[in-house]
Amino acid sequence: MIENVNVIGSGRVGSAVAARLRERGVSVGVDDPSLVLLCVPDSAISGVAQQLVGTLAPGTWIAHVSGATPLAALEPHTRRLSVHPLQTFTRSRGPEQLDGAWAAVTAETDEARGLALELARTLGLEPFELADEDRPLYHAGAAIASSYLVTLHEAAASVIAAAGAPPEALEPLMRRTIENGFELTGPIERGDWATVEAHRKAIRSVRPDLEPLYDVLAEATAR
Amino acid sequence: MIENVNVIGSGRVGSAVAARLRERGVSVGVDDPSLVLLCVPDSAISGVAQQLVGTLAPGTWIAHVSGATPLAALEPHTRRLSVHPLQTFTRSRGPEQLDGAWAAVTAETDEARGLALELARTLGLEPFELADEDRPLYHAGAAIASSYLVTLHEAAASVIAAAGAPPEALEPLMRRTIENGFELTGPIERGDWATVEAHRKAIRSVRPDLEPLYDVLAEATAR
Repeated sequence: MIENVNVIGSGRVGSAVAARLRERGVSVGVDDPSLVLLCVPDSAISGVAQQLVGTLAPGTWIAHVSGATPLAALEPHTRRLSVHPLQTFTRSRGPEQLDGAWAAVTAETDEARGLALELARTLGLEPFELADEDRPLYHAGAAIASSYLVTLHEAAASVIAAAGAPPEALEPLMRRTIENGFELTGPIERGDWATVEAHRKAIRSVRPDLEPLYDVLAEATAR
Repeated sequence: MIENVNVIGSGRVGSAVAARLRERGVSVGVDDPSLVLLCVPDSAISGVAQQLVGTLAPGTWIAHVSGATPLAALEPHTRRLSVHPLQTFTRSRGPEQLDGAWAAVTAETDEARGLALELARTLGLEPFELADEDRPLYHAGAAIASSYLVTLHEAAASVIAAAGAPPEALEPLMRRTIENGFELTGPIERGDWATVEAHRKAIRSVRPDLEPLYDVLAEATAR
């Protein structure tokens, strides 16, 4: 059972994770933890893992919450695992932002897997197992879904604003697109290429920098 | 006041619009309407408008619900306007899908504008005015926000599935990205180009057809 965890890192993820562990009755930040949980930037994981060599009691587990980073980044530690919450975090929310999210769990032994699943569920996450070598591909998918959704909205909002319409009007449309199970509607779904061409011409005249984005997505949508 | 409307077209939008008008006590499908509302494909608007010549009583208004189509498509009618619900519609929902959505209203006279605003509000839409010449640009923004959101999800889901992870895990992430006001998180936000390169390499090896999409969006996000 997870009883004592040392959370290293107090960024967006580390803060939510530590708060959630406390909510669940887990001791956080104790001297002799059973698990050290690295919530640091991807590029810092390996360095922090190295610094911990010789400081951990025998049997202590070490974990990271990164999406793309392999378990090897935790070397030389071998009692290791990863739990990546598939969610975007903001400082203006608390541990409740873990609720309803999924988590990618990677482990090399049955014991590690059991602990990783327990950690995920303690955090309020719905775990699924992910092979270590598939982490970069998995994380690319997550980035497309979240970071590029931000970019897509930014592009749409700037185009709508250039037309003199309120960008906030896009939000009910985008929410409903998700609620409708991503059912495609619009000119491409109707095979209305005249309208697609009118879009392209309008974008070219006002925001030529967005034409490659429009074209790549039009082509992918048509497929 | 809008009392009698003839809704032409019973597709996704026409069905929801007619049902909402009935809910609001408007007579729909009567012989002598004060407004004929064309809910037909963009390419059919002009033809239907032509067919109506000589069949409408003097003073009858004609309108379309298209996003990109100019008012000129309603020629030779001059008592004309457009109300475009900025929403995606599905047949499995009813008139409630109009609630909370915005509407682009285009009109050439104060009288037409007043009627267009009234029609939008009767439908449960929040209207904003849109210049006729800005309609294609506005509609391009709407297509980016909705159709391309579907494409983005499709790409992310296929990548996640290729990594052996459940695609449905993306939905809480995408919903929260919107709820968090499109706050950017992830490797590009952190300037973590090593992870971005790992994504690109992983996509190239499994889904090379998605590399242009990943690259165009990475570049736009970095900007």
